Amino acid sequence: IAGAMLRQSARTFGASSRALVRQMSTGGEKKKSFFSSWTFRLGATAAVGFGLTVAVDRSMFHPKIENEIVEDLMLKKGGLRRERIVVLGTGWASVGFLARIDPTRFEVICISPRNYFLMTPLLPSVTVGTIEPRTVVESVRTLFPWVKFVEAECISTDPKAKTLTLVTKQNGDSKSSSRVVQDSAKSRPEFTIAYDKLVVAVGAENNTFNTPGVQQHAHFLKEISDARRIRSAITDAFESAANPGQSDEERRRLLNFVVVGGGPTGVEFAAELADLVHEDLKNSFPQLKGMVTIRLVEAMETVLSMFDKKISDYTVEHFKTEKIEVLANTFVKGVHADHVTIQKKGSKTLEDIPSSVVVWATGIKCRPIVDSIRKTIGLDVQNNFRGLVTDRFLKVKGCDGIYSLGDCATIENKRLTEDVEELYKGAFALGGNPKAKGVTAESFKKFAASKAAQYPQLGFLAASDASEAEFSKADKNRDGVLELHEFKAALMAIDRTLKILPATAQVAAQEGKYLAKQFNQHPIPEGMQDGGSVVASLRSQYNAIKYPNGIEPFVYNHMGSLAYIGGDHATADMNGAMSNVLEHLGLSVATGKGVFLLWRSFYLSESFTTRTKLLLLMDWIRCKSFGRDISRY
Amino acid sequence: IAGAMLRQSARTFGASSRALVRQMSTGGEKKKSFFSSWTFRLGATAAVGFGLTVAVDRSMFHPKIENEIVEDLMLKKGGLRRERIVVLGTGWASVGFLARIDPTRFEVICISPRNYFLMTPLLPSVTVGTIEPRTVVESVRTLFPWVKFVEAECISTDPKAKTLTLVTKQNGDSKSSSRVVQDSAKSRPEFTIAYDKLVVAVGAENNTFNTPGVQQHAHFLKEISDARRIRSAITDAFESAANPGQSDEERRRLLNFVVVGGGPTGVEFAAELADLVHEDLKNSFPQLKGMVTIRLVEAMETVLSMFDKKISDYTVEHFKTEKIEVLANTFVKGVHADHVTIQKKGSKTLEDIPSSVVVWATGIKCRPIVDSIRKTIGLDVQNNFRGLVTDRFLKVKGCDGIYSLGDCATIENKRLTEDVEELYKGAFALGGNPKAKGVTAESFKKFAASKAAQYPQLGFLAASDASEAEFSKADKNRDGVLELHEFKAALMAIDRTLKILPATAQVAAQEGKYLAKQFNQHPIPEGMQDGGSVVASLRSQYNAIKYPNGIEPFVYNHMGSLAYIGGDHATADMNGAMSNVLEHLGLSVATGKGVFLLWRSFYLSESFTTRTKLLLLMDWIRCKSFGRDISRY
Ligand SMILES: Cc1cc2nc3c(=O)[nH]c(=O)nc-3n(C[C@H](O)[C@H](O)[C@H](O)COP(=O)(O)OP(=O)(O)OC[C@H]3O[C@@H](n4cnc5c(N)ncnc54)[C@H](O)[C@@H]3O)c2cc1C
Ligand SMILES: Cc1cc2nc3c(=O)[nH]c(=O)nc-3n(C[C@H](O)[C@H](O)[C@H](O)COP(=O)(O)OP(=O)(O)OC[C@H]3O[C@@H](n4cnc5c(N)ncnc54)[C@H](O)[C@@H]3O)c2cc1C
Repeated sequence: IAGAMLRQSARTFGASSRALVRQMSTGGEKKKSFFSSWTFRLGATAAVGFGLTVAVDRSMFHPKIENEIVEDLMLKKGGLRRERIVVLGTGWASVGFLARIDPTRFEVICISPRNYFLMTPLLPSVTVGTIEPRTVVESVRTLFPWVKFVEAECISTDPKAKTLTLVTKQNGDSKSSSRVVQDSAKSRPEFTIAYDKLVVAVGAENNTFNTPGVQQHAHFLKEISDARRIRSAITDAFESAANPGQSDEERRRLLNFVVVGGGPTGVEFAAELADLVHEDLKNSFPQLKGMVTIRLVEAMETVLSMFDKKISDYTVEHFKTEKIEVLANTFVKGVHADHVTIQKKGSKTLEDIPSSVVVWATGIKCRPIVDSIRKTIGLDVQNNFRGLVTDRFLKVKGCDGIYSLGDCATIENKRLTEDVEELYKGAFALGGNPKAKGVTAESFKKFAASKAAQYPQLGFLAASDASEAEFSKADKNRDGVLELHEFKAALMAIDRTLKILPATAQVAAQEGKYLAKQFNQHPIPEGMQDGGSVVASLRSQYNAIKYPNGIEPFVYNHMGSLAYIGGDHATADMNGAMSNVLEHLGLSVATGKGVFLLWRSFYLSESFTTRTKLLLLMDWIRCKSFGRDISRY
Repeated sequence: IAGAMLRQSARTFGASSRALVRQMSTGGEKKKSFFSSWTFRLGATAAVGFGLTVAVDRSMFHPKIENEIVEDLMLKKGGLRRERIVVLGTGWASVGFLARIDPTRFEVICISPRNYFLMTPLLPSVTVGTIEPRTVVESVRTLFPWVKFVEAECISTDPKAKTLTLVTKQNGDSKSSSRVVQDSAKSRPEFTIAYDKLVVAVGAENNTFNTPGVQQHAHFLKEISDARRIRSAITDAFESAANPGQSDEERRRLLNFVVVGGGPTGVEFAAELADLVHEDLKNSFPQLKGMVTIRLVEAMETVLSMFDKKISDYTVEHFKTEKIEVLANTFVKGVHADHVTIQKKGSKTLEDIPSSVVVWATGIKCRPIVDSIRKTIGLDVQNNFRGLVTDRFLKVKGCDGIYSLGDCATIENKRLTEDVEELYKGAFALGGNPKAKGVTAESFKKFAASKAAQYPQLGFLAASDASEAEFSKADKNRDGVLELHEFKAALMAIDRTLKILPATAQVAAQEGKYLAKQFNQHPIPEGMQDGGSVVASLRSQYNAIKYPNGIEPFVYNHMGSLAYIGGDHATADMNGAMSNVLEHLGLSVATGKGVFLLWRSFYLSESFTTRTKLLLLMDWIRCKSFGRDISRY
């Protein structure tokens, strides 16, 4: 019963979709009419509604922390104990997991150097002050009072002994600028703790691709501190340029912003920056009008290349109105204090562009802790440099009791072609006609159905016409059956449809949610607390209804991707749940001004807690009414 | 006409009073009923009201920046020019001045290393997250679009040539942690500008009284960056103490907070910290309950010693319920990384108290630039180490065209005893009876009335009975007249009632307001632009109505002092405008729970702009509904 209560209090954790979508008028004229507009009225109504739900949220859904858990926080052990899950990280994956794990069943310990969850999709808006930092963070202690949180960093694991070693790092670029923070951090001793199940969800690092100068002179955009630094740096550039002692050339350099990477993060940051410049800074620094340049450098042929081509084209076109210069097919060769060195694809010459603020948003790589775990297990098994290789149940390959999800993990897709001879034999056996010289259309279909659970890439052959089409494509000599070489070619084509899951919040959150549900179904080992017979029987009844088929592998459900591209425009690459709605609304070409309204309301409903929803709404109203604050501290 | 428009758009700049007064219930029970309470309903109504005023504010009161000013921002000079006022600083004094100075009459340039105004009275609330940083700042560029702002620091003045030298400092503790901020700051060259009138309002520095270790190990509480660091340090202390590897002794040390200084800032910070601990951290860190100590160290006999004794006593008593230990009559001899060394008054032995976060709030001293100006003028004239000595018109003594106000200035009070012989002659002459052997009661009264403008300390003798009482006290030999020595004794007693004005926002703001009005009345020098005959005649008519007596000296009008002391309690030391209201409400003993309600609404009405008002209201609602956020970044 207590479990059910606690579960209820886990805030709804909606699947995320990429975006920052904001309703923001561009002209001064429009600003005036905002308060009579429906957006405002909608906002006001929503504000009152939120007020009420807040009351409910606060009074009903806040579980009291039980004494037993309090005692346990010091990690003293009692007699009979629950299985201990240690979760590393407080990002999308962990939080998805923590929100659903059954705390009456497990002792849950979460360890992370960051004591809060960060709503990364809204981070680009934080860099310019459209949204305030506190709006996009949520303390883990407040979110999950039943989870034992320890602010520390994992530096090594011992999968045999099932223990972890933890420290608090302090050198390098510390997250806080406080002297005293560093003083007291010094007193955090290294310690070791044991686990029964370990969940590694430590995310990934920024990848500089060894480009010289990036660490020293560019900003990353991954953490709150990055966003704050960028915000301060932008205003600093303007204040410096406004100084009477400057030459005009130096002014232009100071107002040269370079964004490296044309993925969603780079595109959204460039869009937000353009909004800041066009909507606010042009009023505060009228004398610098026309001196600002925003450049987006992308190595590939176009921006947002992972999306539909229509969207890329639309974005490039729209960026012209936003006065964002897109330099496609261009590599950054080095970042310096006052310029960036670039090279056009195919060209031998290097070019320098003057710059002040450079934002680096190109890609990710493994954290050292992940590489260390890979090595401990053995690089023969853990042979993917992208991250920890797991099976389709998110269990890390080559060891026991370790699971991994989110940006630091990669699910191994078993290739059909690896076992081609065996599969051929099996498919042949399903044919029913031993005289045939190969696999018939009928047995091909049966084969696909029987193996789809093991090889998800076969899933799309469930439809008869798809299976028939695939068969006849493969049957090159038109003899009605597939010989081994034809069968192999067919499997290779099918394997090619396999994609590794993208490193997105959407994937991470779904994996977290999935893993918690999986764990909740695991049988309770001998000698562990089961919460008493009533709870145990309730739990098994619940599991029986909820998961009639037992433990199934993870399946990713793509909800679509969105990107904010500046001046009220957004793009949506829809696939799955949302595409129907969009089509119904006549927004099948999901680009432009219409999209952002839909998606702003989406963000309000999907944003993490009532607190952040309310703050998000207020930030938008504030930004709309008063503009963005340019105070620099 | 344009002038009137611009003047209108200067936001109402209310006189400030000390306080942070917040309505915040302590128990969980009370929290639930908040949304049905009148406070909530009041808040909701206010929110809607604000929404509407915002619309008006935004659309009507935002002046367009004229092209002429834009050109001028680069400090290029035209033919006929306006007098140029250079204002140093963006604190209470400057902003009070900038809001009222006539921009059609003067070219106004504001120079400060800080591009925003900071609402210091609310800063203690920012240290614990009751209020967010952006709520207490306001960009100067946004506030006063007609003022030319330059982000730089003044390092020297040349009063003869009427020029200033300006740089952007970068070493020492920079205000931003950004690498790139420092890179681009490097490019700000030193430059020189000329002024016709210089207004020095640079405030003051924290005074460590040369106590060893303060600079290295203690936090100050003066700027936004200080408040942010303290907030982060508090959570860090709790997270460190919660680490499983710690000993209980080390836990206790980490949770030992020491506040040095029992003035309003120290008291309010201690109160806010206690609120944070009792209302929020006890839920987030239940295992650390009972390990927290908050100590307030004060060298004097009691806290808030500048207020009424009743208030000090009440505060000390109330701090017992808040679990704040007051160490009165205690000196801090040194601050170290993990302890503070103290000494009791009269004792010879030193004592060490373990500590993690130490906040230093003891007093202020001159900034280097102020000492440099004092030396340039000559220390014989500028003989007060507290700051720039000015006359009662706020003009700096010993030079021309320089004015000073706020924390960095001190008004010279002319002492009656300096001119005693001359005054005696004058008073005697007023007697009418040349035969008398001294000054009669009647001539004493006449003397007081005639000299009150020059010596404000005589002001209180305007009432007949006060004058008579003072006379008969002085007439020791009861002969009905004052001989020279009796007259001198009387003047000495009257001089003793002179007080230097306290270093408060209230004084600074009133001085700023006064000086702007004074300047607006100054005649326009030959060869300077007067805005055309229509504007000039309108202006002189306006001045004639508004200031019938011409330029008068500055008179300070004390509005009362307030301090928030934790757990919904506030104290008010009233004197002047507000005391009547309080008496009327039966709140003449202005301490306790009643006061804060009055003063929370006071803050809402006096807070600087519509934006900050709205944010303040939202912060209070947020804090009430969701508690304070303990995410640390
Ligand atoms: C600016 C930006 C915008 C984005 N926008 C979108 C979007 O719109 N839609 C979308 O789907 N995705 C978006 N993403 C991607 C998305 O944020 C990531 O895919 C997602 O955060 C991955 O979740 P995760 O839990 O694996 O890792 P993270 O969220 O990165 O969390 C990792 C956690 O592990 C902790 N940790 C690190 N090292 C250790 C250690 N040694 N021991 C213990 N803990 C450790 C970290 O402090 C952190 O709490 C965006 C990313 C960025 C940077
Ligand atoms: C935490 C705290 C709480 C307080 N609470 C209250 C209260 O409740 N009520 C009250 O009446 N008073 C209060 N005070 C006192 C009040 O803030 C000060 O008296 C007031 O700020 C003084 O105003 P000012 O303009 O003289 O100086 P400041 O407000 O300090 O402003 C000085 C300005 O000068 C700038 N400057 C510094 N050096 C230079 C330079 N070389 N060149 C150019 N510019 C420079 C600074 O950046 C700043 O903008 C409080 C103070 C603090 C610190």
